[in-house]
Amino acid sequence: MTMSPLLTIAPDDLLVRYSLDSSRLGQRPTVQRRLADLRGSFADVAEYEAALAAGNPVVYEVSSVEPASGDGQLHYGLGVLQPGRIGGEYYLTKGHLHSHRPAAEIYIGLKGEGAMVLEDEATGEVRLVPLVAHSAVYVPGHTAHRTVNTGAVPLVYLGIYPSNAGHDYSTIAARNFRHVVIATASGPVLVERQAHLASLLKS
Amino acid sequence: MTMSPLLTIAPDDLLVRYSLDSSRLGQRPTVQRRLADLRGSFADVAEYEAALAAGNPVVYEVSSVEPASGDGQLHYGLGVLQPGRIGGEYYLTKGHLHSHRPAAEIYIGLKGEGAMVLEDEATGEVRLVPLVAHSAVYVPGHTAHRTVNTGAVPLVYLGIYPSNAGHDYSTIAARNFRHVVIATASGPVLVERQAHLASLLKS
Repeated sequence: MTMSPLLTIAPDDLLVRYSLDSSRLGQRPTVQRRLADLRGSFADVAEYEAALAAGNPVVYEVSSVEPASGDGQLHYGLGVLQPGRIGGEYYLTKGHLHSHRPAAEIYIGLKGEGAMVLEDEATGEVRLVPLVAHSAVYVPGHTAHRTVNTGAVPLVYLGIYPSNAGHDYSTIAARNFRHVVIATASGPVLVERQAHLASLLKS
Repeated sequence: MTMSPLLTIAPDDLLVRYSLDSSRLGQRPTVQRRLADLRGSFADVAEYEAALAAGNPVVYEVSSVEPASGDGQLHYGLGVLQPGRIGGEYYLTKGHLHSHRPAAEIYIGLKGEGAMVLEDEATGEVRLVPLVAHSAVYVPGHTAHRTVNTGAVPLVYLGIYPSNAGHDYSTIAARNFRHVVIATASGPVLVERQAHLASLLKS
């Protein structure tokens, strides 16, 4: 007789409590990404190096719960992205594609104000979608996704994804997103990276 | 050239806002389950009929978002379960198994105080897991799951599941859960249905 699926799940994976005021998902370890870890992510290299010379703050933290793997199973993570800017760009996550490209992800906004950049890997089709408390963002498969904090407090969110999704960071590291999110007087605006880089050279 | 996956998702599925004070998930229609729809769910038939004679209140409402289907895609729903009791039992949902038995589900507590009954279909192995704000409950595959409201205000939660999960209500309708959740002075307690039915006959 096979073991009951219920018995294969650790008790502390059946129920996980979290706080909106910490970056802890139950007792899970947290991965911290500091400014130095984000080299190459921001368009304005001079501003990035200047900020880094002044300090190396935590930009975001993630933790995850992986109760089981295989057909039909799900994993999830908690992200806490600090407020801040480098040049005109908001603090951001490295962003990723799923190793299993068809895998989608659902983000649940818990606290703060931010947005997600959704960029189709093949076509570059792009959307800037708000990520705020009491809302859900659907990230389809084959879509690079990055979170930006457009507000003044930490942005806290959950992401739920199939257990076989996997995280592919290297594709983004190699070519970055094709668009950046720039702070303007009227709020966050999506701009083509090449156009933004050209504007930095002129300024 | 195939269409970008981003373009296959309706804009109002990319971002869905919800409120903790309504049962609406964006503009999605809501399915209401009233007391009359829950015939057979509660152990105490006399108390059920007495309550129904006095009125037919909404017990819970659910709405769902189904952005896409196929490998790796996800669906999700919002549930709002009212507070109340029938005999010693808390207001509850019908509960379901997934048609695709291996499919798991992650519940995110948003508001109120409740619990989930997780019952392995094959072995009857059972767990009563709290479902409260700022927590996540993992429902493994092959596991019947029902929500109960153990508090005094509406219990609001999200459930996220693979797009191919499907809802099998008929198996539960045919044999119900093997355990009931009874309100006691020291809080909710899980009791075998047969034992509870025997105690009702004696009282």
